[in-house]
Amino acid sequence: MKSPRATGARARERSDAGASPARVVIEAVTPDIDGGRFPVKRVVGDRVTVGADVFAEGHDRLAAVLRVRFLGEETWREIPMEPLVNDRWEASFAVTQPGTYEYAVHAWVDEFASWRAGLAKKSEAGLEVASELLEGAALVRRVAERASGGDRQWLSDQARVLGGIGETGARVSAALAPTLAACVARHPDRERESRSGRVLQVTVERERAAFGAWYEMFPRSAASEAGRHGTFADVAARLPYVAGMGFDIVYLPPIHPIGTTQRKGRNNAPSASPGDPGSPWAIGAAAGGHDAVHPELGTLAEFDRLLAAARDHGLEIALDLAFQCSPDHPWVEAHPAWFRHRPDGTVQYAENPPKKYQDIYPLDFTAEDWRGLWEELRRVVLFWVARGVRIFRVDNPHTKPFTFWEWLIREVRAQHPDVIFLAEAFTRPKVMRYLAKLGFSQSYTYFTWRNTKAELTGYLSELTGTAVREYMRPNLFVNTPDILHEYLQVGGRAAFQIRLVLAATLGAAYGVYGPPFELCEDRAVPSTEEYQDGEKYEIRHWDVARADSLRALVARVNQIRRENPAFRANERLRFCPVDNDRLIAYLKTTPDLANQVLVVVTLDPRLPQSGWVELPLDELGLEAAEPFQVHDLLGDARFLWQGARNFVALDPGVLPAHVFRIRRRLRTERDFDYFL
Amino acid sequence: MKSPRATGARARERSDAGASPARVVIEAVTPDIDGGRFPVKRVVGDRVTVGADVFAEGHDRLAAVLRVRFLGEETWREIPMEPLVNDRWEASFAVTQPGTYEYAVHAWVDEFASWRAGLAKKSEAGLEVASELLEGAALVRRVAERASGGDRQWLSDQARVLGGIGETGARVSAALAPTLAACVARHPDRERESRSGRVLQVTVERERAAFGAWYEMFPRSAASEAGRHGTFADVAARLPYVAGMGFDIVYLPPIHPIGTTQRKGRNNAPSASPGDPGSPWAIGAAAGGHDAVHPELGTLAEFDRLLAAARDHGLEIALDLAFQCSPDHPWVEAHPAWFRHRPDGTVQYAENPPKKYQDIYPLDFTAEDWRGLWEELRRVVLFWVARGVRIFRVDNPHTKPFTFWEWLIREVRAQHPDVIFLAEAFTRPKVMRYLAKLGFSQSYTYFTWRNTKAELTGYLSELTGTAVREYMRPNLFVNTPDILHEYLQVGGRAAFQIRLVLAATLGAAYGVYGPPFELCEDRAVPSTEEYQDGEKYEIRHWDVARADSLRALVARVNQIRRENPAFRANERLRFCPVDNDRLIAYLKTTPDLANQVLVVVTLDPRLPQSGWVELPLDELGLEAAEPFQVHDLLGDARFLWQGARNFVALDPGVLPAHVFRIRRRLRTERDFDYFL
Repeated sequence: MKSPRATGARARERSDAGASPARVVIEAVTPDIDGGRFPVKRVVGDRVTVGADVFAEGHDRLAAVLRVRFLGEETWREIPMEPLVNDRWEASFAVTQPGTYEYAVHAWVDEFASWRAGLAKKSEAGLEVASELLEGAALVRRVAERASGGDRQWLSDQARVLGGIGETGARVSAALAPTLAACVARHPDRERESRSGRVLQVTVERERAAFGAWYEMFPRSAASEAGRHGTFADVAARLPYVAGMGFDIVYLPPIHPIGTTQRKGRNNAPSASPGDPGSPWAIGAAAGGHDAVHPELGTLAEFDRLLAAARDHGLEIALDLAFQCSPDHPWVEAHPAWFRHRPDGTVQYAENPPKKYQDIYPLDFTAEDWRGLWEELRRVVLFWVARGVRIFRVDNPHTKPFTFWEWLIREVRAQHPDVIFLAEAFTRPKVMRYLAKLGFSQSYTYFTWRNTKAELTGYLSELTGTAVREYMRPNLFVNTPDILHEYLQVGGRAAFQIRLVLAATLGAAYGVYGPPFELCEDRAVPSTEEYQDGEKYEIRHWDVARADSLRALVARVNQIRRENPAFRANERLRFCPVDNDRLIAYLKTTPDLANQVLVVVTLDPRLPQSGWVELPLDELGLEAAEPFQVHDLLGDARFLWQGARNFVALDPGVLPAHVFRIRRRLRTERDFDYFL
Repeated sequence: MKSPRATGARARERSDAGASPARVVIEAVTPDIDGGRFPVKRVVGDRVTVGADVFAEGHDRLAAVLRVRFLGEETWREIPMEPLVNDRWEASFAVTQPGTYEYAVHAWVDEFASWRAGLAKKSEAGLEVASELLEGAALVRRVAERASGGDRQWLSDQARVLGGIGETGARVSAALAPTLAACVARHPDRERESRSGRVLQVTVERERAAFGAWYEMFPRSAASEAGRHGTFADVAARLPYVAGMGFDIVYLPPIHPIGTTQRKGRNNAPSASPGDPGSPWAIGAAAGGHDAVHPELGTLAEFDRLLAAARDHGLEIALDLAFQCSPDHPWVEAHPAWFRHRPDGTVQYAENPPKKYQDIYPLDFTAEDWRGLWEELRRVVLFWVARGVRIFRVDNPHTKPFTFWEWLIREVRAQHPDVIFLAEAFTRPKVMRYLAKLGFSQSYTYFTWRNTKAELTGYLSELTGTAVREYMRPNLFVNTPDILHEYLQVGGRAAFQIRLVLAATLGAAYGVYGPPFELCEDRAVPSTEEYQDGEKYEIRHWDVARADSLRALVARVNQIRRENPAFRANERLRFCPVDNDRLIAYLKTTPDLANQVLVVVTLDPRLPQSGWVELPLDELGLEAAEPFQVHDLLGDARFLWQGARNFVALDPGVLPAHVFRIRRRLRTERDFDYFL
């Protein structure tokens, strides 16, 4: 049988000096992912609100602090935690620089506060407190011993007053004086404090990791005139157009040399015809591999110039990390060990039986020389980072080992905390979430396949209203070169408008694949979500100046996103009931409620719809009788509303959405024009 | 910058031989309390169903096993896990002896199954599979190397067939043969398997830890005639009465010598009058302390005889562990260091300012000699265990350090896994839950204060339908010497019936404090929940033979509990909608649905109530058109019902509850009498 010394909870382990074990329990610290296995995510400027269950046996008063430091710092900063209800405590800290912060909770029994509360109750009840005052004097003497300088002297003096022969009332007053409590609080007895378990971490990235509008485009289709292979210079010439629509990021599919062996033809034909350019994802040819550029696009120097031009337009270029090879990739000869070889001597191509992708060789991440491969891939990323690329869209990360990504992202971020990784995984939910936990800044989602009100409400609530939001940042793409959803195929122009407004206002990060998006390209390979004559397999020429382009609406929506900080985060998304299933309504607000936006979208791209929207007035800080203005930032109309239920009508033939800024009437003004 | 070797997830740490990291992720293993910090709870005969998220990158087939062993065993037993949906896997094991079982999940990529699935698809699609067969031959050769004896030889032969020159169809058939798959599965390649984190534990107790009816009684009031102090012999004489009501456990408040200093008088008067017996919780006098018995109750030998008599009646005696002392307790002189001393030299008595309890000295669990105190308290428990006591009701555990309980319970259980501890903590929810996590077998609850349908539904759903059920076993006491709820004070006889049926059928463990319960004692100190003339402070004489006693109903209810296994567990409690808020209805079923009970109780002790109960027919395995019998085990009436909605009416003047056993019609019989 063990003596009490040898057993007990974690806190016990520090008590071998002979003192009894720590008494305070610290549980359920949030935010936390899997007991500290993964860091939570924030961006610069956010606050991290940390909560914990903190309690001890009995009725003593407790004290708790949130401890914070930037990873690598020696000293911790401590922030007092405040008790809420039901033994829950809370404090928060601001994150101001990219990198990793650490946090923990420590708590202890506050002997002085406990004693003080007891004295106050007894004194109020008119009970004898002589012994209590003597206990207090002893207590304050012990505090004085921990203090130094002025506090030490003053506390000793106070102890003498409490334990002295003065009039009881005066001694009680001295004991209960806030100045004494404040001074004692500066010198707590934390010998037997309790500590939360594993130190938790938060990865802090720059704001673009959470908030940004993405524009995907194929460089080879960017030529100003038809029939010519686009170049980096053409992309540069297209930048004012993209910037004019208010996008933040231009994402380019792979820009590397394209293999010729087993090259696919137009519309994914099994073999290419002469002149077919092949898929940019079949990376590698005689001209080079993942650290080279396709000769027809230009040179590395021209790519550098494109990067600079983008910066001049306030845009960032995002590259594609597609870690796979065409049969012509230099690695196939230089590093045969990085590929799987079949008994017949051929290299194993990609397949999803019975489908075969002979133009692609997967890399074997578990090969004997896996370290060499992993290090080479890290070199590739750092090669582009060194040129100035700071955003990567990662192709199919769910087909490469999880530990590879965790390692790669950590390695790159250790040197370059401003590098953003977007996971392009369309797979099972737990795999997508796990990639997010591992460190990807953003994740593609099922958004394209969520079109009804029930689907959108359920899915977005899961992404933004549960613990998933602590680590997974959705990037809502409206379309991609692989996904032209049936809703867009059959819904006409209004369908594109609807999905644009939904993506841009539901998600702090969203994207479109253009010009097919703004030109409402809706031709699909029959019974599929594939684009007809898709750019993956051929060069297209787009007349971006077309009068029916959605570019003006896109520009307006992106401007609204920039001007309304409520759109910069997802966690304050709140759906509002509407008595018409074709209408969806939701609020986004800043934590201080200074910016309040109500978005109402019809999901019916054909017929006019109307209904009554129900607003949570109390959450908006509005009185039931108080009129307020809703200003449609899309159409610029203004309506005066009052009360929780208000009427909305949307005609997709005109515009299928309202993006209302809610403006409160100034209390001192009576004029309609003077709304905030 | 680190090489890939030095970083990565936990699974990586085992890969220093140079192999690439384990690929399979194992997450969200259930049941689990706080990442393995505490064991979950079961009783002998239960099954533990273990679930886990198991997945890897890509599309390979995986295999997973649940590993189980009894604590101390060297070898693990492995049970194959089955995939459910959404990457969730599951397996279960039975627990057959009291003590601690350990469990963990291991998983790996099943290379052969992955290859086999690909071959099957390609073969079905009529594709060329020559190279696949050669790969399979190599794979099976590697398996053969891991095997021995007959399997080794047979596998080698099969590898030769697969890689041989035979006809392709025959080789494919050999490759896909279930016999080959079965043989390969016996020799998996687990070199790079993944393992769930901390090994989890389940504490298994005997069934009485979960299922039992408690009867609390004051021995000193058990005398057969008024005016005499009851004795252990009187309690023994009362046992047939208690056993006749079908109880399992007789819980006695402290039986130790009672202090005289500052003794409380009747109805908690500040001072006792001559002849007042004092509170049994003021433990300790000249006659001894926690290991002595109150002389007026009898001797230790007589107590031993009571224990034996209880066993003869199929009853167990539960004692009270109230770790506090009267000022006359021998420890006060022998171990002054176990008490807090005030500056004026007196010992600190219990208080909850401004209330004072001068008849009670709390023990100082954090005193310098805390080890000595803790060990003495362990000695006290083992003293009673050695006499044959196996159940303890622990008084106010929430005022003693948590680590003390965790240590004490673990110490006692290590030698005596059949000892049951009931936590009498009526305090904040998180403190109550934490005590349960620490190891208490059962916990008092807020049941007495949950009286409306909404209160009962919400609270019982929390206790039985959330993760709380993995560690906290509610014991639903209807009344205690401290709690006579207003509902019982004003509701009359029907209120007692209602609360009895609710407690006994909602909770696998429940209790009453008698004879006040069955005699419907409802006199309270005005505006309190205290009994008027309560037995805590005086000896009462009860006429248990009174004609209006509820003893027959209690006996019937306890018999129903014993005869219907659905009442032995809580986790399959399911509330059913009733269109009358005064009626509450719920189902309890065994996992195999062989025993199905529907309880309908009116919460109105005054007026008749009726309504329509809605049953989840599908969960009961009933067809919509299928008539079924409900047999009221309380009143013995039988009704033929059909469909989901059925009418019920209850008159509290007759009986305020139905306890229906649901019986299906035998498929082959048509007669009403032939229900199962």
